[in-house]
Amino acid sequence: MALSLTVTAQLNSRREIKIPDIPGYLTLKCDLHMHTVFSDGLVWPTVRVDEAWREGLDVIAISDHIEYHPFQEDIQINFGRSYEIAKPRAEMYGLIIIQAAEITRQMPPGHFNCLFLDDVAAIDQPDFWDAIGEAQRQGAFIMWNHPGWRQEDEVPIWYDEHTRLYDQGLMHGMEVVNGRSYYSLALEWCVEKKITMIGTSDIHSPIGMDYDLSLNDQRPVTLVFATDRTEEAVKEALFDGRTAVYSDDMLIGSEEFLNPLFYHSIELVNGDQDFSSGGTFYIQVINRSEIPFHLISNGKPEGVEYPEEITLHAERTVMMPVKLSRNATNNTHGVILLYEVKNLLINKDTGLAVELVIQ
Amino acid sequence: MALSLTVTAQLNSRREIKIPDIPGYLTLKCDLHMHTVFSDGLVWPTVRVDEAWREGLDVIAISDHIEYHPFQEDIQINFGRSYEIAKPRAEMYGLIIIQAAEITRQMPPGHFNCLFLDDVAAIDQPDFWDAIGEAQRQGAFIMWNHPGWRQEDEVPIWYDEHTRLYDQGLMHGMEVVNGRSYYSLALEWCVEKKITMIGTSDIHSPIGMDYDLSLNDQRPVTLVFATDRTEEAVKEALFDGRTAVYSDDMLIGSEEFLNPLFYHSIELVNGDQDFSSGGTFYIQVINRSEIPFHLISNGKPEGVEYPEEITLHAERTVMMPVKLSRNATNNTHGVILLYEVKNLLINKDTGLAVELVIQ
Amino acid sequence: MALSLTVTAQLNSRREIKIPDIPGYLTLKCDLHMHTVFSDGLVWPTVRVDEAWREGLDVIAISDHIEYHPFQEDIQINFGRSYEIAKPRAEMYGLIIIQAAEITRQMPPGHFNCLFLDDVAAIDQPDFWDAIGEAQRQGAFIMWNHPGWRQEDEVPIWYDEHTRLYDQGLMHGMEVVNGRSYYSLALEWCVEKKITMIGTSDIHSPIGMDYDLSLNDQRPVTLVFATDRTEEAVKEALFDGRTAVYSDDMLIGSEEFLNPLFYHSIELVNGDQDFSSGGTFYIQVINRSEIPFHLISNGKPEGVEYPEEITLHAERTVMMPVKLSRNATNNTHGVILLYEVKNLLINKDTGLAVELVIQ
Amino acid sequence: MALSLTVTAQLNSRREIKIPDIPGYLTLKCDLHMHTVFSDGLVWPTVRVDEAWREGLDVIAISDHIEYHPFQEDIQINFGRSYEIAKPRAEMYGLIIIQAAEITRQMPPGHFNCLFLDDVAAIDQPDFWDAIGEAQRQGAFIMWNHPGWRQEDEVPIWYDEHTRLYDQGLMHGMEVVNGRSYYSLALEWCVEKKITMIGTSDIHSPIGMDYDLSLNDQRPVTLVFATDRTEEAVKEALFDGRTAVYSDDMLIGSEEFLNPLFYHSIELVNGDQDFSSGGTFYIQVINRSEIPFHLISNGKPEGVEYPEEITLHAERTVMMPVKLSRNATNNTHGVILLYEVKNLLINKDTGLAVELVIQ
Repeated sequence: MALSLTVTAQLNSRREIKIPDIPGYLTLKCDLHMHTVFSDGLVWPTVRVDEAWREGLDVIAISDHIEYHPFQEDIQINFGRSYEIAKPRAEMYGLIIIQAAEITRQMPPGHFNCLFLDDVAAIDQPDFWDAIGEAQRQGAFIMWNHPGWRQEDEVPIWYDEHTRLYDQGLMHGMEVVNGRSYYSLALEWCVEKKITMIGTSDIHSPIGMDYDLSLNDQRPVTLVFATDRTEEAVKEALFDGRTAVYSDDMLIGSEEFLNPLFYHSIELVNGDQDFSSGGTFYIQVINRSEIPFHLISNGKPEGVEYPEEITLHAERTVMMPVKLSRNATNNTHGVILLYEVKNLLINKDTGLAVELVIQ
Repeated sequence: MALSLTVTAQLNSRREIKIPDIPGYLTLKCDLHMHTVFSDGLVWPTVRVDEAWREGLDVIAISDHIEYHPFQEDIQINFGRSYEIAKPRAEMYGLIIIQAAEITRQMPPGHFNCLFLDDVAAIDQPDFWDAIGEAQRQGAFIMWNHPGWRQEDEVPIWYDEHTRLYDQGLMHGMEVVNGRSYYSLALEWCVEKKITMIGTSDIHSPIGMDYDLSLNDQRPVTLVFATDRTEEAVKEALFDGRTAVYSDDMLIGSEEFLNPLFYHSIELVNGDQDFSSGGTFYIQVINRSEIPFHLISNGKPEGVEYPEEITLHAERTVMMPVKLSRNATNNTHGVILLYEVKNLLINKDTGLAVELVIQ
Repeated sequence: MALSLTVTAQLNSRREIKIPDIPGYLTLKCDLHMHTVFSDGLVWPTVRVDEAWREGLDVIAISDHIEYHPFQEDIQINFGRSYEIAKPRAEMYGLIIIQAAEITRQMPPGHFNCLFLDDVAAIDQPDFWDAIGEAQRQGAFIMWNHPGWRQEDEVPIWYDEHTRLYDQGLMHGMEVVNGRSYYSLALEWCVEKKITMIGTSDIHSPIGMDYDLSLNDQRPVTLVFATDRTEEAVKEALFDGRTAVYSDDMLIGSEEFLNPLFYHSIELVNGDQDFSSGGTFYIQVINRSEIPFHLISNGKPEGVEYPEEITLHAERTVMMPVKLSRNATNNTHGVILLYEVKNLLINKDTGLAVELVIQ
Repeated sequence: MALSLTVTAQLNSRREIKIPDIPGYLTLKCDLHMHTVFSDGLVWPTVRVDEAWREGLDVIAISDHIEYHPFQEDIQINFGRSYEIAKPRAEMYGLIIIQAAEITRQMPPGHFNCLFLDDVAAIDQPDFWDAIGEAQRQGAFIMWNHPGWRQEDEVPIWYDEHTRLYDQGLMHGMEVVNGRSYYSLALEWCVEKKITMIGTSDIHSPIGMDYDLSLNDQRPVTLVFATDRTEEAVKEALFDGRTAVYSDDMLIGSEEFLNPLFYHSIELVNGDQDFSSGGTFYIQVINRSEIPFHLISNGKPEGVEYPEEITLHAERTVMMPVKLSRNATNNTHGVILLYEVKNLLINKDTGLAVELVIQ
């Protein structure tokens, strides 16, 4: 960025991703898988930083392939070079950039991102296990990328190689979402095996060619719940499994994190209404986040009628009609409306259960 | 609104107007001039409430004409009826609705809204001064509407009638903005004569036929700085001159109110940069409001170079390059960047002067 | 519309609905069901004309209820009055407006629009059959509105009353789409019983409160294939069953009409490619209509590989890869790609079968 | 583009630029100045082709700098290489790609694009005049890029070097628009000296980082009026001065081309109105192009009143009120409304004069 005397283009500005922090943690927005012309991406490394800043990201990892360099006739192979070029620009913006690389093998075992590397070149080993061993020596966070890649109907298969990695404590993370693909079976595995859930763009093109940013179409990100805005805190959170995946209007993660994200996003406004003698009331529900919450009724409290389905639109307030019989409000804790949030997934087919309490 | 079991349409939700409260006051968003089929508007009164709620308003006044009823062949004249019909719906939403009417005479004296009426019918007097007198008896807030209406090039003329009103303390407010019209001379008068500045839609059509709400095109509103979210507090604020006008990307008002609105909207992020030895730095400026601030340089501090012009885009962060010579930072109070905010008008041609302080 | 000296607001302009004419017929865009304050609608009748002109409609019918007048305390019942008020404005725009009314009874038999009336007041009869009889005497086109209304899950039930109407030749049309509701069973009935398919908005609010017009969200319309842009030609086409329903991205109608609509919307650009020796080719498919066509493969020609699914985006060109084996092109008629257009419904679960021919 | 079995992303489709052909010529949309990582651009060459196809371009020229290679530490200098990489992809899309290069010197003389080169490497000469001479030998079209670049207030200065080039017949074209910059003085020079007017993006970033394509923000293009869709026809048209520049909502060119562009874009619909006895009439004016035409009155025909200003919105129909006195229509050729189209520039401050004829 030159020291221009006129700085006006709106495009060159940062839009925050409106998802709240939760108690004890900052909610950092991270994309941990992307490419540049130093492997098979189509942009110069600094572009990845500019894109990330504009889109409200806090953390990125450029993970150029170790074994795949289609442009090597023109661009010499230079491991770690994309990180080196991008880093000063990330610093200018105050973005955290993580040194990374993608080990790129036929399935099985497939592709694996290694994050927090010191020496990318050392990962370039003919044998897959040697490469992984080197990543381990460097203390890398190792994640299985797009597990459904090139499998029938994109359904991932868990091969012996994955068992070996997992048993040796070397499958720290797994992509539940990669670009436009969502792997529900990967989500199940992450829940069962306590593998850190990851969502990434794996972007190769300029981001605007794959996502229509003006229309709120955005890349998948990993929400990392970190104690601090530092690389060290991100690393600790990843190893500790403190993540959720935000993709399209879907939020995927454990109840431990989705629960506070939901309750810190919404607010109920009851006005001065007196519910004690029953009747029809209108409750305003504010959703301050950019995620629309799609609620479906999850049980039938006696004496209370309320919408079977309701969407709490992003950054909007909706009016919810509630009909109470006289005795519905005997409960001293107020009336509780039971819902499941369909697009907040805590497992394959299970949305987060929530309670809206009217007092 | 029926007790529908499925409530999903995004259109039927409320979008807040993102302008902050200021110390000591709530910033209420008010439209104090609008019409229904009970005069020459084209919608049923409840529509005005629904529109207002969706657009993030807090307060409305339906001000049907006293003397003009083009639909009287079909709809009988019934003063106060539009208020009566709209009120229960406003209560459902928690909106404040003010009983009002528009005295509608040829220029001079022109049209005058009377707000906070008890008895609209009593305003219906053949003589203008009798009508105004009755409004005064009811304790009304009286404002001169669209002062440039039917004047050449819409430039308002101050007639003897206006002097008489003003001298008798009966011109409490004046429309500086009415719909798409902005009267700069009215702004001057308001500043000079301490008349409360008002901006209104004067909407006759369904609002969506005149404003493209999806594209952030919105009606003008009066920001009322009230101690409380009550009709009484709104009335007190209006009589006390505690308003600003928000229209398009323009905010019009006194320094007393625009100043805190600006500083409560923005935040500077310096990072951990050490400015002591000079150099080029990048400061991120966050604008949390929905108003883009258009800044132009307003003075030349020695040893500091920064953009001549910069727009702090709405709900965005922009990067501001600043070049400091070594001695520029001797100042113990940090470096001060001097700007005028062109679209925050404190008088006809005068934008608000602001200081961005880098420490 | 006053003779304003400056006419600039983009909102006050007409956007055409981009659906082509077909051989022998103009494709008129019609909304045959809407309300005003003269029954339970929320706008003055002229608003319906302005809305329709802006949205690219050619024909409207205001069909205020005969038996339902919630605003009669303020607006006296006056059958035909909304038509009378709206007509001069429609003429100014060159829109066709049809005099109409909605017979409004409990289900069964439910609600019925009568179009092309001469004397609306005469339809006001205590007995349903008398009302229908009068409509028949006036030569009205009679259609069953929202057949699933107030039925469980909105699934329509065919009652004896409907049999009687149908047998007497008095159920000329049926709403397959009403507002946001689509009745698949009604579609089946229309196909089986040769009833004219109708899609309407049944709009009560200002249209912009229910449809986000800026975002290409638009009211359902009936496409009427008429020999001329006259009321008479519209009437003839309706009685003759020459319609299709356009709602969201869905087009519903018989093969006779959907087929030419599809082929007059698209164009294939082969370039100068020589297919004779096989290989991979890229065909550009232009869709000039505003309807995106969602195609799924419908058969497997030997020696040809092409996308299983492809969307021909609205007013866009897409690139379709096609892989031909050598012998695939022996066919002298070129290569035929077989698709079903999922959103062009010729019956409940049946999309239009189409062929893309590459020569 | 792999042979994907599902092709659905709307982003990956082509939007036509809606500007009509004119009698005798195709209107080709061309961007003749852009960069890749082979000089100081930030994308791989194929990206320039994909972008161009999506945005509705017909012709591009990648014009990497001869003398500037900031990435040469990683990417070896290889003149003509970006063309070589991009060409097969352009062929797949049916786009015309022109081999080009930018001679890049300090001002004066500044930067010059050479189009239609056979041997880019040969242009790499220490001496500017040798480089230009070589371009001439190859039959290149030579254009002066961004003439206001690094001049005070971006106002271009015509130096001796430019006289020499011009006198030798080597300044065939000149950029009147480069990116967001418009050089009105360059327009004057082009008109006076019969230099071909050019508008280009000079894009370095991914195009979506500089233009918000979703919001109809698009790069400047040169409209080339060619007899055929071939490189040869484009070359002939450029040397013959058959161009116009389309940038933002502005069209710049000679009357010879802007005139037919205007009249082939609009259509007047008079309906069946009889103007003979005067009165107020409403004329619908259809604008089929994507350019909004901003008209201001240009003379006062006697006995006719019509809007002083009117915008014919892009792809819309507007209603124009016209008031005729009785004798206004004695003219057998109908009534003529005289306007100037402010955003169709035939010289610095001169809009195209047009006549709307009502018959």
